[in-house]
Amino acid sequence: MNARHTAAPSTDLDHQREAIAGLGHELRALVDATVRTVTPADVLHRVTDEVRRLTSQLTGRRRTRTEIPHVDEFPGGIRMFSPVTGPGNPLAPPVRVTPDGDGVTGHCTLGIAHEGPPGYVHGGMSAMLLDELMGWACSAAGTPAMTVSLQLRYHGPVPVETPLRVHARVTGTEARKVFVTGSITTEADGDRQLVTAEAVFVAPDPERARALFPER
Amino acid sequence: MNARHTAAPSTDLDHQREAIAGLGHELRALVDATVRTVTPADVLHRVTDEVRRLTSQLTGRRRTRTEIPHVDEFPGGIRMFSPVTGPGNPLAPPVRVTPDGDGVTGHCTLGIAHEGPPGYVHGGMSAMLLDELMGWACSAAGTPAMTVSLQLRYHGPVPVETPLRVHARVTGTEARKVFVTGSITTEADGDRQLVTAEAVFVAPDPERARALFPER
Repeated sequence: MNARHTAAPSTDLDHQREAIAGLGHELRALVDATVRTVTPADVLHRVTDEVRRLTSQLTGRRRTRTEIPHVDEFPGGIRMFSPVTGPGNPLAPPVRVTPDGDGVTGHCTLGIAHEGPPGYVHGGMSAMLLDELMGWACSAAGTPAMTVSLQLRYHGPVPVETPLRVHARVTGTEARKVFVTGSITTEADGDRQLVTAEAVFVAPDPERARALFPER
Repeated sequence: MNARHTAAPSTDLDHQREAIAGLGHELRALVDATVRTVTPADVLHRVTDEVRRLTSQLTGRRRTRTEIPHVDEFPGGIRMFSPVTGPGNPLAPPVRVTPDGDGVTGHCTLGIAHEGPPGYVHGGMSAMLLDELMGWACSAAGTPAMTVSLQLRYHGPVPVETPLRVHARVTGTEARKVFVTGSITTEADGDRQLVTAEAVFVAPDPERARALFPER
């Protein structure tokens, strides 16, 4: 009885996460079509009306500003709606993060929706990828922490619609400070660093951690 | 006759831009509902199917990777699909940029879709806002340029669902280098800088500019 009680919600949770990821995936395709299409205004107006109708179908309760989604494991686990890694967030590429020998590696391909100069990724988006991966590197090293200082160097433009690799690793710690480096390359040319980053993260003291990361 | 010829496309262009901005606005609302809703999986599946159907309605030609949208003025003008300022890009808040006494100021409110720590803006999103505004500051100063180095300092968390002000200004130039500073505050407390940035931008040499910014 207890076992069934434990198993059932887990399966429900998996189904819910799959449904959320499925919607995120299709919305990403709609966003891509929206920023690329050369469609007459009357078609855009009709699609706009239908989008408004769809939004009204997502009825029911909406979570409040600081509420952790019930499908998440927080802190330190699944975040379905992260703007970088969340499969349920249409803004996220999403980046798939895997541990590697000396840190973490993220894999993603960015679309035209993330474009700065024509054909290339917005410089701020590269910052977002690196900040996120460097945070994962801190957690992977056992010292979850927050960015206090981030230095980015842009060596070459990062192409859109091209598989990318983002690497980050902790290089040292000093009291509550964690020092981290990161880089972005294409998957095809892993030796040519297009953007590099150095950051200082700080593990929040317990009081601040409670304020920033409220318990579920 | 010539005058009418000139006026007609301009009006068409305005209508097209309005339609693009309208769709961007409604998609932003759908994205917000998607990342906030606590909706059963069956409803999410139904909405997913409808989103897929909508994407298929945005038929016709899709612009290619480096093609400038015909609704844009580029370089140096309107960019309808910018991921930061573009009203037609569902990923953009969008930021409204206005010149001020000594640089440029951007106004925006970020939603939960841009969340890092619960209730607060993702640190990378703050970087994206600052990188974008610092680029505008370069253009406003008559020296359009690209980021080569960006240093961010996070002094305090930036709240979501709160009107924000992003300020950037050029502090000096040296040959093709442009030095820029920037900051993020809330609209309510303009004295308390939550994130500050210093950057070096470089005006591309003509050959590189042609490669990065192809003529229409």
